[in-house]
Amino acid sequence: MTLKVDKLSIVDYLGSNKKELDSIVLQYLPARNVNHEISSLYEMMRDYPSRGGKGLRGSLCLLWTELFGGKREDALICAASLELYQNWILIHDDIEDASDLRRGLPALHKKYGVELAINAGDALHGKMWALLLQNEKLLGAHTSMRILSEFAMMLDETTEGQQMELCWSKNGRWEITEADYLLMVTKKAAWYTCITPARLGTIIAEARKGKAGISGQLPILEKIVEFGTNLGISFQIIDDVLNLTAEESKYGKEILGDILEGKRTLMLIHLLAVSPESQRENIIQIMSKPRQEKSREDAEYVFKLMKSSGSIDYARRLAKRFSEKALSQFEDILGSAGIRRSEKYKLVRSLIEYLTSRDY
Amino acid sequence: MTLKVDKLSIVDYLGSNKKELDSIVLQYLPARNVNHEISSLYEMMRDYPSRGGKGLRGSLCLLWTELFGGKREDALICAASLELYQNWILIHDDIEDASDLRRGLPALHKKYGVELAINAGDALHGKMWALLLQNEKLLGAHTSMRILSEFAMMLDETTEGQQMELCWSKNGRWEITEADYLLMVTKKAAWYTCITPARLGTIIAEARKGKAGISGQLPILEKIVEFGTNLGISFQIIDDVLNLTAEESKYGKEILGDILEGKRTLMLIHLLAVSPESQRENIIQIMSKPRQEKSREDAEYVFKLMKSSGSIDYARRLAKRFSEKALSQFEDILGSAGIRRSEKYKLVRSLIEYLTSRDY
Repeated sequence: MTLKVDKLSIVDYLGSNKKELDSIVLQYLPARNVNHEISSLYEMMRDYPSRGGKGLRGSLCLLWTELFGGKREDALICAASLELYQNWILIHDDIEDASDLRRGLPALHKKYGVELAINAGDALHGKMWALLLQNEKLLGAHTSMRILSEFAMMLDETTEGQQMELCWSKNGRWEITEADYLLMVTKKAAWYTCITPARLGTIIAEARKGKAGISGQLPILEKIVEFGTNLGISFQIIDDVLNLTAEESKYGKEILGDILEGKRTLMLIHLLAVSPESQRENIIQIMSKPRQEKSREDAEYVFKLMKSSGSIDYARRLAKRFSEKALSQFEDILGSAGIRRSEKYKLVRSLIEYLTSRDY
Repeated sequence: MTLKVDKLSIVDYLGSNKKELDSIVLQYLPARNVNHEISSLYEMMRDYPSRGGKGLRGSLCLLWTELFGGKREDALICAASLELYQNWILIHDDIEDASDLRRGLPALHKKYGVELAINAGDALHGKMWALLLQNEKLLGAHTSMRILSEFAMMLDETTEGQQMELCWSKNGRWEITEADYLLMVTKKAAWYTCITPARLGTIIAEARKGKAGISGQLPILEKIVEFGTNLGISFQIIDDVLNLTAEESKYGKEILGDILEGKRTLMLIHLLAVSPESQRENIIQIMSKPRQEKSREDAEYVFKLMKSSGSIDYARRLAKRFSEKALSQFEDILGSAGIRRSEKYKLVRSLIEYLTSRDY
């Protein structure tokens, strides 16, 4: 019963954060220009940020700041920039992954073409750094630079993860191990969803206490990498499961889209590992088809095999194991940082639980 | 005679700067990773920075810093980052413009595919900001943040200019005025080639003198925008002329490539303006063809008309007018900033002359 209340209240909490962060982003982005073409660029830049979303990254950053005794106002620019990060990188990701839908609407390159979408992604990327420069007044130049380096590190990791996944697809590699998958997901999802938002919260909170120097924070920041890796992996596995099992209207992306796009998910790796040779070849032959040649039936066939082979249950179990590890590391971090179990603590815990047990 | 010596020595000077800046960039970029796919990303990131180039932007930044009494060492990171900027944005530009060649070799997306090239461009983009963070030790956090805001402004302008040109192409717009063209070129070329490098030089030099505050520099920085606009326009017109008339081996891009790509250059705008109606329709019909359907003969036909209609001479005359304006504004800036006519002064002047009178 308590859990249910928590889940409802965390959804409300995320929603109200997201609203606030989106309005910071949209107020910051340019809206109109006398030149028609430039106005159309602004429109493209405002498109994904206007589509909503759950606001997980920004909320985690805000909550973590408060958990560590910092002020919510100090974290607003960072949290909004995390949402902006997701928006620009998804524009490019959607091109790279040939995704047709984003949050229930056509992907940006589907609306405007690949050329303009690449450019709009770059323009939005630039605005992320520019928005982060506004931290100077709030947090001082040194801490602001420190925050920028966190964003740079996050981008390194994300692009490396994306490269791994794109190369597997381009080179037709199917002998992916679970370790390969976990490294890719850590880089591509855990860093920007969990690790960086939490690290930023710690840095912002400590800056207020006059501890902007990196040395004192280092052990905690290292622990956050481990915690965030486990949480992010769990989050991504659940996301991949939802891609198979969620309701499309809630999920906002195409159901079975990962199979249609030929993605190497944990379920697929499991399925290939447990399949007899001929079935394995059959699955790879289907998965290797270009998207436009892959039928709904092809995708349903692979999905059914995943169900009957226990691949989905396996993925859910693994996700649970990673989320339990994350929770215990979370308690450990709080202990070593001497953080009290306050109301914020409860909220972060339910956010962690939500991330790994949501149904859309 | 003196001019010839100057021209030789400026080419040498650019070459040696470029070598130094490239080695800063290549030393900074990651080279190897145990993971094969991640290594391939690093290889892609190092590709364009390894191809050489003239190093105009970095050199202008270095020279301008010294001209204003600053230290060359203080400007090295900025200058290297300007070269890095050009490298990552050209990766994306080459995709957006469907360019096949870059500096005499296949464009990155031709070697690795569009998906990987977009991602590698983003990764390299991130490294530009990360490299700029190293300014903190050299110039302090506040000036470093000021420099970052210049890079953000430059990116705003470049992406707006790119949007203008891409939209003209996408929407089949041919009734482009000279004013449209000049605005596009100012945004797409003048900012990152001339305006920002010179502004950065002023900011770096003044920071050493303890004048990091923006207020005192504002009038000079505003004047640099005007000067750099005129210089950049002249530079770009010459570049467009060279695309028609240079030797391919020296130029490094495909000759007549702009016609094949359907670009709205000053020569084309002039040609369309002076052509009788039927010829005008003929030219537009050819220019509108998709690149792969456009023959060498098509491009030669338009090129010959540009010659016979005086469009190339017209463009050269206009370029000269803009470069004269830039030179006089340059003298004006030095006067109002109280800068002596030193050796550096001579070098900057010959760089300005080189930018607008080069033959490749």
